[in-house]
Amino acid sequence: MSTQVLDGLRALVTPSAVLTAPEDKASYLTDWRGREKGDALCVVLPSTTQEVSSIVWACAQQGVPVFPQGGNTSLCVGAIPSPGGSGVVVSLSRLSRIRAVDKADNSMIVEAGCILANIHAAADTIDRIFPLSLGAEGSCQIGGNISTNAGGTGVLRYGNTRDLVLGLEVVLPDGRIWNGLKTLRKDNTGYDLKNLFIGAEGTLGIVTAAALKIFPKPKDNAHAWIGVSDPGAGVSLLSLFQETFDTKITAFEMMSKSEVDIVLRHVPDTRLPLTQPQPWYIVVELSDVQSTANLTAQLETCLQLAAEKGLIADAVIAQSGAQAQSFWKIRHSVSEANKDHGIGITLDIGVPVSQVPGFIARANAAMQSTFPEAEIVIVCHLGDGNVHYIAMFDKRDLRDPAKRKRVQKDLERLVHDIAAEFGGTFSAEHGIGQKLKGELARYKSAVELDMFRALKAALDPAGLMNPGKLLPDS
Amino acid sequence: MSTQVLDGLRALVTPSAVLTAPEDKASYLTDWRGREKGDALCVVLPSTTQEVSSIVWACAQQGVPVFPQGGNTSLCVGAIPSPGGSGVVVSLSRLSRIRAVDKADNSMIVEAGCILANIHAAADTIDRIFPLSLGAEGSCQIGGNISTNAGGTGVLRYGNTRDLVLGLEVVLPDGRIWNGLKTLRKDNTGYDLKNLFIGAEGTLGIVTAAALKIFPKPKDNAHAWIGVSDPGAGVSLLSLFQETFDTKITAFEMMSKSEVDIVLRHVPDTRLPLTQPQPWYIVVELSDVQSTANLTAQLETCLQLAAEKGLIADAVIAQSGAQAQSFWKIRHSVSEANKDHGIGITLDIGVPVSQVPGFIARANAAMQSTFPEAEIVIVCHLGDGNVHYIAMFDKRDLRDPAKRKRVQKDLERLVHDIAAEFGGTFSAEHGIGQKLKGELARYKSAVELDMFRALKAALDPAGLMNPGKLLPDS
Repeated sequence: MSTQVLDGLRALVTPSAVLTAPEDKASYLTDWRGREKGDALCVVLPSTTQEVSSIVWACAQQGVPVFPQGGNTSLCVGAIPSPGGSGVVVSLSRLSRIRAVDKADNSMIVEAGCILANIHAAADTIDRIFPLSLGAEGSCQIGGNISTNAGGTGVLRYGNTRDLVLGLEVVLPDGRIWNGLKTLRKDNTGYDLKNLFIGAEGTLGIVTAAALKIFPKPKDNAHAWIGVSDPGAGVSLLSLFQETFDTKITAFEMMSKSEVDIVLRHVPDTRLPLTQPQPWYIVVELSDVQSTANLTAQLETCLQLAAEKGLIADAVIAQSGAQAQSFWKIRHSVSEANKDHGIGITLDIGVPVSQVPGFIARANAAMQSTFPEAEIVIVCHLGDGNVHYIAMFDKRDLRDPAKRKRVQKDLERLVHDIAAEFGGTFSAEHGIGQKLKGELARYKSAVELDMFRALKAALDPAGLMNPGKLLPDS
Repeated sequence: MSTQVLDGLRALVTPSAVLTAPEDKASYLTDWRGREKGDALCVVLPSTTQEVSSIVWACAQQGVPVFPQGGNTSLCVGAIPSPGGSGVVVSLSRLSRIRAVDKADNSMIVEAGCILANIHAAADTIDRIFPLSLGAEGSCQIGGNISTNAGGTGVLRYGNTRDLVLGLEVVLPDGRIWNGLKTLRKDNTGYDLKNLFIGAEGTLGIVTAAALKIFPKPKDNAHAWIGVSDPGAGVSLLSLFQETFDTKITAFEMMSKSEVDIVLRHVPDTRLPLTQPQPWYIVVELSDVQSTANLTAQLETCLQLAAEKGLIADAVIAQSGAQAQSFWKIRHSVSEANKDHGIGITLDIGVPVSQVPGFIARANAAMQSTFPEAEIVIVCHLGDGNVHYIAMFDKRDLRDPAKRKRVQKDLERLVHDIAAEFGGTFSAEHGIGQKLKGELARYKSAVELDMFRALKAALDPAGLMNPGKLLPDS
């Protein structure tokens, strides 16, 4: 059977686009963190939507599971197959054309394998921006961003990936192509298929192309690095900023001192922007399409008011682009620094914005009594109520993978239960993948799980599309 | 059987909440335009989600169709049952509580029967706005707005209803309640059920409550009434405004001279804001949360630039709130004036923004040769590419309903085909209802129709939820 499948695939694409040697497949079968590995009969690299369609059709005919893969930067082991599998990984990386860029319509049409940073660059050439911004932007692909409804640092102003997509082209589990690539701003003709595929983690079909919203490019901006005493002050400061600047706020990121200390220690050419350390730091960015908006002066006025209200301990406004970049270098180096520093167990909590301080306090207290050896480091997309709650362990303590997994499960349970008490979620922006299927089963109601299964059965009745992801094992 | 159903319902709600007398049922069975009537065994007026759940469960047990109804302002006959039916209309009008308002989270939780204007008022009390704005806001209900993904005049800045909903509570076709009432800004845990129910026109379940986004209230605004020579100038002006004002543009509405003339003729206390008539008019509104934004001056500068570029023929900036209201009175009186004036056949076209001028030119030429007796009046949400293309006939010519329906079908086909050529849609914001099911069958691909049917069968296998709406007859 394997030979038959491989021969069939080699007839559909150039033979060199079917990888079977272990060393060729390896990078496609290992997750981003390097902690998990899966198996597959082969990795196929189609170059067109039609090729994707043919591959999926051929696999469906033979009952072979299909695993779509973008830049393989999933934080939830969503992009690789399970161990022991003999399915086909379909990498979208060769579908990397930008099909159209339209300034008057503020839209682009891109293929799934476009690297996010290349989409940024293409928008830039016509004085527009595509505002999805995240740490992996140099290697993640838009198809993966769409399939996981990626978040990042621009959500407060521009929304999640879901909010940036006007239309999709999808290869369905039976190999048929759905052309939903419209660039319309309004279209009320039937059920919302687009949003069903966005965030479905490739379990309902393979996104092959997307129509995206782009936006006028800001011509003025201002950045501040702010020290605050506690998360409550951060939330009050956010309210003040929202009432003052509304959509001019393009980022409002909060980090614990512990997180910033790790970056400063591990990443060359970084230094604390303030003269004295503070318990919490906030990086704020304001933007405006008017070059005359004078945002730096407005930011200064707002920070003075915040200081008078006792909301901030210290702050520095960037006086140059280089200084602004130095603030962002610290923020963007978090994942890399944490990897160097120890073994971080990262939880992707979301709570209502007003509940962030209460959640952090309760979680810290619980961690202190249950896992006193862990150092808590926190990175928040505060405007979205999204708290990356990271328990950092010494590498020596969690060297044993079995122990690490046990600790991870216990810790997830502890903190996810607290998030649920605050009306929150255990996965704000990272999705489910293989990693959080158990949590989905625990925290979702029976009604909701029934609907998930009904939708999966309706669109992928054979269950061949990215099996083992998102849905709990039944 | 009818008696059994009625007795069952009377046991579930107070008996006076079950209407069976023809005169009591009449207003629930007649569509907004008064052109279509349907039939039902009864109209039930539940007061709680639990009552809705019990009613739907009881109907499901007996195989009785259920027709959810909000304010009954559908423009596509989506809110009334078909003629000859013996199902149950479930009016949500008594579920009208505002359950929560949260300033720090910028969210509200409201029941489905809340009238849109009451939601505006509730947000206003905490210095926030709920930005969904449309002509029927004094009588339409939020459950209907959500079920039809209503658009309106604020979409350019704030998005469609879909973009304003954080979470939903829904009674499913089997009577179970799905509690998805979260107020989270990010939650990537499984398929996007929320967006599936939004715009589903009550065919997958009954929305009983919603968590909504609210926004900081603008503290400065500016309004202009602008005359332009043609739609192309309107699109160029929109681009200039977007690059200058971005999210400060809260409305950008274009009307043909023919439309404004009808309003001026039929609506008391209206007068043209300009000294000379122009072929097209644009009403623009700018808003900012900063009271010191000085938008009127900025608007003046931008209009001067537009005049230098030859984009505008004439313009007046409102010098008072009363004058701004007089601009909006003309815009908001369109439906009422058209009703008085003749028989309007309204098409709800959406095309990419840059295609609006081309679409209008082509449609006008086709109408001129096929329906020369019709007067074309146009109201555009220009920033959304949404063209309300209205063919106005003399009341005497279309007095015969059979003739009116025939003309309507022919005219729809003519103009919808042109919209499709421009990459557009035949229903940008009004939905499908009973009126446009045939068009859905015509313009959607087989792949897409198959997915629609699969989703309907997955969530409403008995087909009892608002039958006869949205999906084409099979």
